[in-house]
Amino acid sequence: MHLEGKMLIAQGGGPTAVINQSLVGAILEAKKNPNITHIYGAVNGVDGIVNENFIDLTFETEDNLLRVAKTPSSALRSTRTKPDKEFCEKMFEVMRHHNVRYFFYVGGNDSSDTVRIVKEFADKEDYELIAVHIPKTVDNDLMENDHTPGFASAAKFVAQAFRGVNQDNRALEGVYIAVLMGRHAGFLTASSVLGKVFEDDGPHLIYLPEVPFKIENFLQDVKRTYEKHGRCIVALSEGICDETGEPIVVKLIGSEKDAHGNVQLSGNGALGDLLTEEVKAKLGIKRVRSDTFGYLQRAFAGVVSEVDAREAREVGEMATKFAVHGQSGSVAIKRIADYDVAYELVPLEKIAAKTRVMPKEFINKEGNFVTKAFIDYVTPLVGETLPKIARLRGKTVEKSFTKKNEK
Amino acid sequence: MHLEGKMLIAQGGGPTAVINQSLVGAILEAKKNPNITHIYGAVNGVDGIVNENFIDLTFETEDNLLRVAKTPSSALRSTRTKPDKEFCEKMFEVMRHHNVRYFFYVGGNDSSDTVRIVKEFADKEDYELIAVHIPKTVDNDLMENDHTPGFASAAKFVAQAFRGVNQDNRALEGVYIAVLMGRHAGFLTASSVLGKVFEDDGPHLIYLPEVPFKIENFLQDVKRTYEKHGRCIVALSEGICDETGEPIVVKLIGSEKDAHGNVQLSGNGALGDLLTEEVKAKLGIKRVRSDTFGYLQRAFAGVVSEVDAREAREVGEMATKFAVHGQSGSVAIKRIADYDVAYELVPLEKIAAKTRVMPKEFINKEGNFVTKAFIDYVTPLVGETLPKIARLRGKTVEKSFTKKNEK
Repeated sequence: MHLEGKMLIAQGGGPTAVINQSLVGAILEAKKNPNITHIYGAVNGVDGIVNENFIDLTFETEDNLLRVAKTPSSALRSTRTKPDKEFCEKMFEVMRHHNVRYFFYVGGNDSSDTVRIVKEFADKEDYELIAVHIPKTVDNDLMENDHTPGFASAAKFVAQAFRGVNQDNRALEGVYIAVLMGRHAGFLTASSVLGKVFEDDGPHLIYLPEVPFKIENFLQDVKRTYEKHGRCIVALSEGICDETGEPIVVKLIGSEKDAHGNVQLSGNGALGDLLTEEVKAKLGIKRVRSDTFGYLQRAFAGVVSEVDAREAREVGEMATKFAVHGQSGSVAIKRIADYDVAYELVPLEKIAAKTRVMPKEFINKEGNFVTKAFIDYVTPLVGETLPKIARLRGKTVEKSFTKKNEK
Repeated sequence: MHLEGKMLIAQGGGPTAVINQSLVGAILEAKKNPNITHIYGAVNGVDGIVNENFIDLTFETEDNLLRVAKTPSSALRSTRTKPDKEFCEKMFEVMRHHNVRYFFYVGGNDSSDTVRIVKEFADKEDYELIAVHIPKTVDNDLMENDHTPGFASAAKFVAQAFRGVNQDNRALEGVYIAVLMGRHAGFLTASSVLGKVFEDDGPHLIYLPEVPFKIENFLQDVKRTYEKHGRCIVALSEGICDETGEPIVVKLIGSEKDAHGNVQLSGNGALGDLLTEEVKAKLGIKRVRSDTFGYLQRAFAGVVSEVDAREAREVGEMATKFAVHGQSGSVAIKRIADYDVAYELVPLEKIAAKTRVMPKEFINKEGNFVTKAFIDYVTPLVGETLPKIARLRGKTVEKSFTKKNEK
């Protein structure tokens, strides 16, 4: 196969800690192939393609690329634009003008749909174009993949955060509620379980978008845990909804709106704050705190799963390998051992615009925690390098002063 | 000096990532001294003393102590109780009953005041007691200290977070507002400056409790930055107040109260959410996001400054060294080189119930950023191990398609 032309690569959607690994994996592999005449990067994802906003990566040094690979978030910047057919046609016209023959888009399920539509245009016009989608998402919600690059590093951040807040909450007690990313899939919230080391450690309760959230059950769960341990740590997804699919934050706000008439849904501290007030008011517990992990969890500099970094690099490398052998599709990660993976190229329509959620066997019967099956699934992804936690072992001293004074 | 008796140690106030280093430093040093017959730990700070809730640490293995030292937050748990004179007298009575001759309290300025009062009772009663305060606080607000253990690790967390959100905000643009800990002293918020690597990186604006916050100035600052860079990253302390000392969050909420009639001040996302709405409404910027770093920043597992860990260990070790030589007081860190420190024992009344704030030379004239003097001050504390950030260097490609179609 000797398809000569330019390569164009872009990054879309929410950043991850390892999305540049995939970018660099694809570029380094492309530099080995003389059929790829130039390597262009589109700035701001698909927007950069229709606006013809390209930078020439052909002359990037290997050293700088390796440094970019370790930098969190999207070095080519990103976009939230979801292209329609007309937009994709324009993308295709710009690519054809530049003799782009290899098109790579690093992103989630919307991005794979974009790749699919652009490829269709090229086929219809008999323009030879290889188009490959490279997976990424902290939500871990792509079909056909055992897991997706970006998830494990975010999960590691969540695990380390919970190892810390566990000790913090043990020191000062009370109820702690953490609101984590995840609108439809609860994988990241579920990963908080890796914060647990000792039997009485938190998270004690985990609420996921996959399970309808009932405020009364939540309050009972918190009450029971607090009575047992004198404290309670809760992890919940921003996307939790009631049985009808209405987001819990809307339910709690009721008809109240902010100063500008909006009901705030996410990207703010509202859900955590409202549940905090519920627990204080209904259970009479004084010390109730909440944190919304927000943007910290998805691209934190310096907390990266080594497995995730390696696989993110490899999906990029594999994308180029498939491409220079004439194959279009989406690179998918399959688990083949405990623990190893293989990469396959799957048809774009199997990924495009679809969402994977937590399988039932990962969630306990009560819908307020995860199972051992989930822990077995997530542990090798995050790796062996979580910070260790230890406790003092000293025995309790007899209360001789108190006894004496009681007499 | 041959004062024989038990040692009692406790931890108070908000946890830090290295507070157990100090605990273990004091214990390991005490185990060398035969005059110290037993080592007791009080559970939950001063509450554990009046309730005679002790654990016997005499038989802790060195290996386990070294593992506890690396565990974040307070292994002996903590308390928010601020003892009055009567409370301190009760503490003293329990200590006398157990023949405690060496008393150590790891904490902030309130804790040092407690140590001072207990020591006074002992002196009045002619009971020989050595009492030493061991400093800790992420707020870095203790008098007599160049800096305090716990601060540098929290500052490192903030720096790493900003290295990440910088790239995140660069990828998706808009305004990002981070609310950081600091009621009176802005050191931790100011440390966000270490997130900046490239000239156009954030944080672009830093607001501290030391400078009266004017919403109009803030909006103008954000507007100017956004027009220049197409984005704007703001770091601000939870404790920012107006000229009259009224917290900004109260000002923004106005007379509105939550469902339970409270005005929320901190420990929630209100300040960030309210400023987000202000920027959206007054400046018409669409993508405005805020994170409240909350409890993540003070005891995150796995993000520790090596300098901080070492010094936290040493202040504990020094506390015992001073104590077994009959000296009571508060261990203080003095900077003696760029970079090294020395430890001194200072009188308790010089620390007790006093608060240090950012010196003027650390804040710029406009009151919306820090100076080079602050960067020089904080850099050696956080250390050389911050994650590196790199950018692609590729040149912009000529817009030949756009030009052709314009003709």
